[in-house]
Amino acid sequence: MSELTSVAEAEDLIARHMPAFGSEPVALAEAGGRVLRQCVHAERDQPPFDRVMMDGVAVRWRRPLPRSFSVAGVQLAGMAAQTLADDDGCLEVTTGAMLPDGCDCVIPVEQTHRDGDRCVLADSCTPVRGQFIHPRGADCRAGASLLDAGMRLDAPAMAVLAANGIAEVEVAMLPSVAVIATGDELVGVAAPLGEGQIRRSNDRALAAALHSRGFHRVALSQVADDLAATTGMLAASLAAHQVLILSGGVSMGQRDHVPAALDALGVRRVFHRIAQRPGKPMWFGIGPQQQAVFALPGNPVSALVCGIRYVLPALLAAIGARRAPAEQVCLDAAVDSHAGLTCFVPVRVQSDSSARAMAHPVPVRTSGDFSSLPRTDGFVQLPPGRAAAAGDVVAFHRW
Amino acid sequence: MSELTSVAEAEDLIARHMPAFGSEPVALAEAGGRVLRQCVHAERDQPPFDRVMMDGVAVRWRRPLPRSFSVAGVQLAGMAAQTLADDDGCLEVTTGAMLPDGCDCVIPVEQTHRDGDRCVLADSCTPVRGQFIHPRGADCRAGASLLDAGMRLDAPAMAVLAANGIAEVEVAMLPSVAVIATGDELVGVAAPLGEGQIRRSNDRALAAALHSRGFHRVALSQVADDLAATTGMLAASLAAHQVLILSGGVSMGQRDHVPAALDALGVRRVFHRIAQRPGKPMWFGIGPQQQAVFALPGNPVSALVCGIRYVLPALLAAIGARRAPAEQVCLDAAVDSHAGLTCFVPVRVQSDSSARAMAHPVPVRTSGDFSSLPRTDGFVQLPPGRAAAAGDVVAFHRW
Repeated sequence: MSELTSVAEAEDLIARHMPAFGSEPVALAEAGGRVLRQCVHAERDQPPFDRVMMDGVAVRWRRPLPRSFSVAGVQLAGMAAQTLADDDGCLEVTTGAMLPDGCDCVIPVEQTHRDGDRCVLADSCTPVRGQFIHPRGADCRAGASLLDAGMRLDAPAMAVLAANGIAEVEVAMLPSVAVIATGDELVGVAAPLGEGQIRRSNDRALAAALHSRGFHRVALSQVADDLAATTGMLAASLAAHQVLILSGGVSMGQRDHVPAALDALGVRRVFHRIAQRPGKPMWFGIGPQQQAVFALPGNPVSALVCGIRYVLPALLAAIGARRAPAEQVCLDAAVDSHAGLTCFVPVRVQSDSSARAMAHPVPVRTSGDFSSLPRTDGFVQLPPGRAAAAGDVVAFHRW
Repeated sequence: MSELTSVAEAEDLIARHMPAFGSEPVALAEAGGRVLRQCVHAERDQPPFDRVMMDGVAVRWRRPLPRSFSVAGVQLAGMAAQTLADDDGCLEVTTGAMLPDGCDCVIPVEQTHRDGDRCVLADSCTPVRGQFIHPRGADCRAGASLLDAGMRLDAPAMAVLAANGIAEVEVAMLPSVAVIATGDELVGVAAPLGEGQIRRSNDRALAAALHSRGFHRVALSQVADDLAATTGMLAASLAAHQVLILSGGVSMGQRDHVPAALDALGVRRVFHRIAQRPGKPMWFGIGPQQQAVFALPGNPVSALVCGIRYVLPALLAAIGARRAPAEQVCLDAAVDSHAGLTCFVPVRVQSDSSARAMAHPVPVRTSGDFSSLPRTDGFVQLPPGRAAAAGDVVAFHRW
């Protein structure tokens, strides 16, 4: 029996062996939610011109300022800049317009009234030079660094891409992922249930976890507990996908064909078995074409915990996503841990009145007990060798 | 000029006027990330039978227990239950198998060896009754409540649906959303830029925010600052979509045609102008077929803040999504607020060593300054009438 690998060592081994998946250009309309793989700099000054911030009139400021102006024209948003030729005149302006040449003050329409072709300031109106003007370059200068490679393209980032003329954007390629369930006892969600059979569910959970992190190229399949069938299915999957996630068949039993099949196909084992509960039998290896192969235990809690704890962070790192600092939570109750194994315990998380993330443990009795997991938010990681007490701050992993 | 509506009142008015969007059945494979609109109960006991938890042999326990057993057969996972006829015999079993009738103890393969057709216990092996058996119904009983309407279908929920035979699941229908940019100064991301023009970006930001919350039925368009064109475009959008989100054209200027066009089309104004910064000019109304119409200010920070603060929560509530408790954060520095207006201030958020969510304010000078938003996580809401100090706990809204 192989030695147990520690959690930190397993993470490190996976990180050191993961392949890179490259980048690709996509149209801006398809880029939302993807991981950026280029830097983005300002196309030009922002705003690109002295920009009118209110509907009203633009004037040339001086002291004393006249109380009425002849309206010499209109400068609408989108128009090329007009010029104010006459110091005693004004130009009507709209929000977003270029400030007309020769003007340095905008007076809001609410503070004026029209008298024929003249614009008259209200008695209460006391304009100051520069008011309601958003100066060219006040937000950023042309060439300024705006977006860094590795960020997820969220709403503000999409606005910045669009505003800066990035019609096509370089994003991380998404690996093609096969999720393969093993087990003779498994049947599909709509199949009649024979005695001794259960419905396949790990593949759906892993696919949902992948989708929620933006990995949409996921294919599901199942293989029976048979060495030849397993070898055949894995050979086909290795040919078609860059990442394989298996559930089940990785323990020490006579029906656990996954390690033997992977070995026969030239998938090199990096480690087998982690000092953790649940998920001890987890296996990780690298295929002949650098395919990443995660063989997870078949129990539902084990498979999902290992998927969230190892597979997703490894895939995110491999596509170049910036690593977010680990979420920390504070336990609101003591929870059993283990002297020699890292324990993963489901929790519900809620902010307290001081904005602390408080985690309430909802331990499962066995790694087969998954019915309560939908009413939790994720799990905490409890290091080996000490009891976890209320008030302890520990790492949290969201489902 | 209309009275300013408070933030709480605006929220309440929107909630009271939003239509419902109904539900629809979808195949399980399409359900991940959708909002559940049915309750789910256990199809049968889980596990559905006394389930073997280790590869090994199953025996009938008694005191003293024999140290070797004749191997009478094999009970693999997925097989109907065998019966152990002879108390001195055993059956080979695999993880996930039904416990054979007549057995009440599983001995792991690692604690045995084979001697011909007999299975011999290791000297150190001291089995106890019931060991390595996951009893029928230990996780949950048939009919137990597992999932509630309103939850987002995450990985654990998908596992539960699959395991319980829910091949088709009732989820919230997604409204069809039109995002309409107004403004003569706007051009597309790939267009050549004329003097006085800027690139359209609010629609991309709003679409990304909608996508990130699961609203995928989003159409983008643009209309010029012209009453007839605006009225025509809005008429077509009201006919084709259940929700309209406009940006720009809602201030008091002569070129702000949106309120007039909406009025002409029978869209009833619920409120116009909220006591907030940014986003004061926001307009909300309901169309003749109960279309929800959000007309947001055109400045980039205003449009995105209003979208995140009002539109998305309203849409989530309208599709029946369970309301998550508002995220709370603790300010790490003082920040200017306003005596009469609720202020929304961008922040970066990070856990401190006690698991408190600490927010660092990154205020913008004007609502046109959006270049720094991608380096923030969202914004805090500062109530009117008091200065916000370091240590204050305030509501946080993620981009």
